[in-house]
Amino acid sequence: MIAVLKHGTTQQQTDHLVAWLRSMNLDVHISQGQDITILGLIGDTSRVDIDLLGSLEIVDTIKRVSEPFKQANRKFHPEDTVIEVGNVKIGGGHFAMIAGPCSVESEAQIIEVAAAVKAAGADVLRGGAFKPRTSPYAFQGMKDEGIRLLLKAKEATGLPIITEIMNIRALDLFADVDIIQVGARNMQNFDLLQELGKTDKPILLKRGLANTLQELLMSAEYIMSEGNENVILCERGIRSFETYTRNTLDLSAVPVLHELTHLPVVVDPSHATGKSKLVPPMAVAAAASGADGIMVEVHNDPARALCDGAQSLTPAQFAQLNKKVNLIREAIV
Amino acid sequence: MIAVLKHGTTQQQTDHLVAWLRSMNLDVHISQGQDITILGLIGDTSRVDIDLLGSLEIVDTIKRVSEPFKQANRKFHPEDTVIEVGNVKIGGGHFAMIAGPCSVESEAQIIEVAAAVKAAGADVLRGGAFKPRTSPYAFQGMKDEGIRLLLKAKEATGLPIITEIMNIRALDLFADVDIIQVGARNMQNFDLLQELGKTDKPILLKRGLANTLQELLMSAEYIMSEGNENVILCERGIRSFETYTRNTLDLSAVPVLHELTHLPVVVDPSHATGKSKLVPPMAVAAAASGADGIMVEVHNDPARALCDGAQSLTPAQFAQLNKKVNLIREAIV
Amino acid sequence: MIAVLKHGTTQQQTDHLVAWLRSMNLDVHISQGQDITILGLIGDTSRVDIDLLGSLEIVDTIKRVSEPFKQANRKFHPEDTVIEVGNVKIGGGHFAMIAGPCSVESEAQIIEVAAAVKAAGADVLRGGAFKPRTSPYAFQGMKDEGIRLLLKAKEATGLPIITEIMNIRALDLFADVDIIQVGARNMQNFDLLQELGKTDKPILLKRGLANTLQELLMSAEYIMSEGNENVILCERGIRSFETYTRNTLDLSAVPVLHELTHLPVVVDPSHATGKSKLVPPMAVAAAASGADGIMVEVHNDPARALCDGAQSLTPAQFAQLNKKVNLIREAIV
Amino acid sequence: MIAVLKHGTTQQQTDHLVAWLRSMNLDVHISQGQDITILGLIGDTSRVDIDLLGSLEIVDTIKRVSEPFKQANRKFHPEDTVIEVGNVKIGGGHFAMIAGPCSVESEAQIIEVAAAVKAAGADVLRGGAFKPRTSPYAFQGMKDEGIRLLLKAKEATGLPIITEIMNIRALDLFADVDIIQVGARNMQNFDLLQELGKTDKPILLKRGLANTLQELLMSAEYIMSEGNENVILCERGIRSFETYTRNTLDLSAVPVLHELTHLPVVVDPSHATGKSKLVPPMAVAAAASGADGIMVEVHNDPARALCDGAQSLTPAQFAQLNKKVNLIREAIV
Repeated sequence: MIAVLKHGTTQQQTDHLVAWLRSMNLDVHISQGQDITILGLIGDTSRVDIDLLGSLEIVDTIKRVSEPFKQANRKFHPEDTVIEVGNVKIGGGHFAMIAGPCSVESEAQIIEVAAAVKAAGADVLRGGAFKPRTSPYAFQGMKDEGIRLLLKAKEATGLPIITEIMNIRALDLFADVDIIQVGARNMQNFDLLQELGKTDKPILLKRGLANTLQELLMSAEYIMSEGNENVILCERGIRSFETYTRNTLDLSAVPVLHELTHLPVVVDPSHATGKSKLVPPMAVAAAASGADGIMVEVHNDPARALCDGAQSLTPAQFAQLNKKVNLIREAIV
Repeated sequence: MIAVLKHGTTQQQTDHLVAWLRSMNLDVHISQGQDITILGLIGDTSRVDIDLLGSLEIVDTIKRVSEPFKQANRKFHPEDTVIEVGNVKIGGGHFAMIAGPCSVESEAQIIEVAAAVKAAGADVLRGGAFKPRTSPYAFQGMKDEGIRLLLKAKEATGLPIITEIMNIRALDLFADVDIIQVGARNMQNFDLLQELGKTDKPILLKRGLANTLQELLMSAEYIMSEGNENVILCERGIRSFETYTRNTLDLSAVPVLHELTHLPVVVDPSHATGKSKLVPPMAVAAAASGADGIMVEVHNDPARALCDGAQSLTPAQFAQLNKKVNLIREAIV
Repeated sequence: MIAVLKHGTTQQQTDHLVAWLRSMNLDVHISQGQDITILGLIGDTSRVDIDLLGSLEIVDTIKRVSEPFKQANRKFHPEDTVIEVGNVKIGGGHFAMIAGPCSVESEAQIIEVAAAVKAAGADVLRGGAFKPRTSPYAFQGMKDEGIRLLLKAKEATGLPIITEIMNIRALDLFADVDIIQVGARNMQNFDLLQELGKTDKPILLKRGLANTLQELLMSAEYIMSEGNENVILCERGIRSFETYTRNTLDLSAVPVLHELTHLPVVVDPSHATGKSKLVPPMAVAAAASGADGIMVEVHNDPARALCDGAQSLTPAQFAQLNKKVNLIREAIV
Repeated sequence: MIAVLKHGTTQQQTDHLVAWLRSMNLDVHISQGQDITILGLIGDTSRVDIDLLGSLEIVDTIKRVSEPFKQANRKFHPEDTVIEVGNVKIGGGHFAMIAGPCSVESEAQIIEVAAAVKAAGADVLRGGAFKPRTSPYAFQGMKDEGIRLLLKAKEATGLPIITEIMNIRALDLFADVDIIQVGARNMQNFDLLQELGKTDKPILLKRGLANTLQELLMSAEYIMSEGNENVILCERGIRSFETYTRNTLDLSAVPVLHELTHLPVVVDPSHATGKSKLVPPMAVAAAASGADGIMVEVHNDPARALCDGAQSLTPAQFAQLNKKVNLIREAIV
C-alpha cells in the first residue's frame, strides 16, 4: 500500500502517522521527495481501512498495490475454478445454460418448463421460490412449497436446480438445492454471506445494483474466507441514468473479472434488460465476451404468454438462442 | 393505475390483457382513442407488478396514479409523525442532533465522547457496535460488547442511543437500544425489515447507495406494514460518478420526502462526504433544507485525532456546528 | 401525448390547462375518471415541452405516445439506412471495420498504420486531427496539418477516412474527409449539429457520456431535420460509478437503437474501456449484439508500443480480431 | 506526478518508460521497493496525458500530486476572486441573487419581470434568448431579438443582465451583456471556451450533467488560460438514477469548489430540481452551504402561472426567499 502525503505536511504529522501505522503491525518505508513524501506500507494491509486513511487531511493519495481480495484473486490461484453440480461443469472452458421461469407457480408449470428447457439444451433449471420484491404487498413467491416443487422438477428431469435464498434461517430448505443464489439486493448482506461460507454449496453471487467489480469480489471473499470456495459470479446489470432498459448490462465485467479472479462468471440478460426482445442479442454478446454461462428466463405457458412473458423467452426461442450461443463459443476459441 | 397500449395492438391482445387484469380482481375501464387505447385499472393495484406489466410488448406506458406506499403516505396521514425516545422528539418541528463516534472502541472512549457530545448539545448518542465492512478481513466492530458499552454510556449520560443491526438473530441484544439503525446496504434486506416491523422500536432506515426515494419509502412500508410505525428516514449520500466526495449527498431528498411522507427525515453528512471539513457546511445546509435531525460523527481523542478523524468532528467543532444549526432553524421558520 | 392530472385538480385548473394546450394548436380529448382525469393531446406534439408540462403542479404524469424523433424513427422508415463511402457500405447488413491511430502524428506514421490496417482488413481509416482534451495544456492534435496527412494516407491506401470536427468554422478543411465525427462532448452542441445537417457528408455521432438513447436520437434528428440523412450512431461507453473501465460500454444500446431507428449503429470499444486487453472481447461482443461496425484504435510503432498502446491494438491483434468478428457475424445470422 | 509500476515489471520495461517520460522533458526519480517501483515525475506534468499513462500495462497507478488546473487553483491564488458587474459584486463574501424568466418572450414580459425581481431584491436579471433544446422542433428562443429586449430591461431597471451563448459566431450580440452564460451541454465545448477566454466578459460556467468538479475546473482553466480570469462557476444538478427530481443537486460542490479554487460559486436550484416547490428549500440550503449566489427562475404572469410556472417562483415567493437567504447568510458567518 502506498500513501502519498500532501505538500506541506510537517515532520511531526508524518511521525505521528507513521507511529500509528506501525501500531497496526505494518512496516513503513519512507521516501522523502522534494515536494512530497511517499510511504510504502508493507505487511498485512488487508486489515487497513483505506477509506479512513485516504480521507486524512495530510494524505493526498492512498493506493493499494495488492488487491484486497486474496482467495478470489487469480494471482494466487492462476487456474480457472470449475464448479460441478451433477454432471454439469461451469468455468474453465465449461459453459452452462441456466434457464427456467421467473417464479415457481405450480407443480405442472415447473415440471413442464423444466422438461421444455432440458429438451432445448438447458444444463441447469432456475426458478424463484423466495422472491425479493420492492413492495411488501406484492407476491413474495411460493417459498417452502416452491422449493419442494423445484425438487420435484429436478427429480423428473435430472436437471440440477438453482434458486435464491433471502434469509439464512431458511437454509435447511436448501439442503437438496444444487446452487444457492444470492440476489443483487443482498450482495452486501455480509452476515448472510458469512453463513453461506460455512456450507459447501455452490453459491451464485449476483452483482449489486450499484456495486463495483472490486466490491463484488470482496463479497465473494466473505464467502470464501469462511471456507466455501464454490462461488460463481453473476453480472445482471447496473443502475444508470438510462431508462429504456431496466438496468445497464455491463458486459465488460466479464473480461475484467476473468483477469482479476479464477471464479466463473455468468451473465443474466433477462433481469438486466427487462425485455424479452433484448435477451437473445445480449445473451450472444455475453457468450462472445467470454462468459462461462448464461441465465435466462423461459416460460412455457402459451395461454399466458401475452401477459407473463415480459422478460421471458419461449422454449422455442431459447432453443434457437442455444444454437447461436454454441456457434459463438466456437467462433471465439 | 393507467396502462397505455401501443398503436397497433389487436383487439384480441387487448381482450387477453383485460381478462388477465380482471383475473387479478381489478376493474378495467377501457378508453379507446384514435391511435391508442388507455386502460384505467381500479382496485388494489398495490399487488400489481408494475415492472412486469410495463415490459409487455403491447404496453407503451404503465403508470401508477396512486403511490404504492400507503402507511408511509402523507396523503392518508397528513400530520407529521413525531418519534419519541426518552425526552427527545424527532419530527413535526422537533429537531435532533445525533452524535458520537464511528465505532465503539472502549468503555472510556464511549463514555467520554458521550459526555462531550451531551455537553455540546447532542440529543442522541450514536456509535457502531456491528460494523458493515466491505472486506471480511477488516475490523467488524466490538459487537455484543460494543452494545453493552453503549448502554453504559447511556446510563452515564442519560442520552438515548442509536446503533446498527445487521442480522435479525442479534435482535435480543437491542432490547435497551433506543433507536435501531438499518444501514444503507440492508435497505432492501426485506426479511430484516419485516422482522423489525414486528417490534415497536424506532427504526432509523438509511437510503441505499443507489436507491430511489420511492424505493426508500417502500422499504419503510415493509416495516410499517408489519405494525411498527416508528420509522425515521435517513439521507446519507448516493453513488454517482463524482469521486471527490465519498458519496453525493442528495439534499433535495429532504423536501421531497416531506412532501411524500409524514415520517421524519434525518441527514448524515459524515458518511455522505467522508471528509470532516465538509461536514459543517453540509450539516447546516441539511438544516436549511428542512431536515428533522442531523447525525454526525464526533471523536474525542486528541492523541489520535490526526489519524482517526477523517470524517469526524471534535466536540468543539460539533458545539460550534450546533449553534449554527440553531440559528439556521430560526431563519427558515 | 397523454397527460394524467392529479386527484384533486379543480375544474377551473383543468379548463385553464386545456385552454393553454389548445392555444398551442393541439386537440385535447378529455377522459374524466372517478379519481383522475386523462387528457389525450392530438396534433404536432413534437413542439410541446414535455419537461415543462410534466412539472406542473396539477400534472401527475405526462407521456409521449409517439416518439419525439421523426426522421430517425424506424416506424416511418422501416428499411435500414445504408451509408456509402467509397466502396464501403455501413448498415443494412453491411459491416465496417474502422481502424487507425488515436492521433495523427506524422506522415510516416499515418501512412504506415493505414497500410497496416488495410492489410489486416480495415474498411475505413480513423485518426484524430482535432483532439478534444480535458486540459487546455494537453496536446490538441495536429489540426489542419493532421487532416492533410490523413488525406495523404487516403490517397496512398484508397481507404475512406473519418476524423472529428470540433468547430463549425473548420468545416472547409473537411471537404475531402469521408465521414465527419461528432465527439461525445459535442453530442448536444446543437448549433454544430444544425450546421452539419446542411452538408451532405456522412456524420458519425457519438453518444454523450451521460445521454440517454432518446437524446442521442434527438441529436441525430437535429442533423436530419436540416436535410442530411447520412447519420451513423456510435455507442462509446457511458459514465457510471464503476472505475475499473474508463466508461461503461452499454451494448444493449445496439439492439435498442436498431428497434427505434433505421440508422446504422457502430461501437467504439477502445474509448469505452480504455484498455487494449478489453478491446477484443468487447469488439466481438459488439458484433454479436448486432452492431453495423466497430471502430478501434490501432497503432503501428513497435518502438513506442510500451508507452503508447494503452487502448490501442497492434495490427496483428487487429487482424486476429477481424477474423473473429467475421465468424461471429456468420454465427448470428 | 507519481507512477506506481506493477509487480513483475522488467528492468527493460522500466527503462523504456523512463526514457519516454524524459523525452517529454520530465525529471524522473526512481524509488525501487521490494515489490514495486515508484516513479516521481517532476516538471511540467500538466501536459502529460494521465489517462494514457494510467492505462499502460505496466502501470498500476498514476496520480497527480499537483492539480492539473493552475490559474483556477486556490493554492496559487489564495484570495477569493470577486467578479464585478455594475454595482454588483459576486464572491469574496459578496452574494448575488440572479433572477428572471426562463425565456424572454416579449418586451412587456421581460421589463415587467425585471422590475418585479428588482423590487424583490434581485441583483442581476437572467433570461434566455438562445435556448438549448433537446428537440430541433422545440422553441429555440427569441435569439437576437431576445437579447435586444434584455438590454431594454437592463436600461429600464439598471439591473446587469446574464444570458446564454451557444455559438461563438453570435458573440457580437453579447457586447452589452454583463455576464455570458455557458450552459451545461457546452461545458466541454472547448473551442467556445477558448474564444470566450479571449474576451474580458465575466463568464458563468455551468457544470455539465455528468462532469466531475475537476473537469469543471479544467473547463474554467480553458477560459482563464486565454487571459480571461472572470469566471463564475455554477452547480446546477448532475444526472443520477433518481427520477423524482430532474437532476440531483450536488450541494457539496460548493464547499469543495471553495477549497479548490478562488472563483465564485453560484447555485441554480430551478434547473436542478425542475419543480418550483423545491426551489426555496434548496436555495436556502445552497446559501447555508456557502454559495456566493443563487440563480432562480421567476415569472410574472398570473394568467399563465398555472401552465408556465413549473420551475419558476412568483415575485412574491422570490421576495420571501430573499429574506430567508439573508437570514441564513447571517447565521453562517
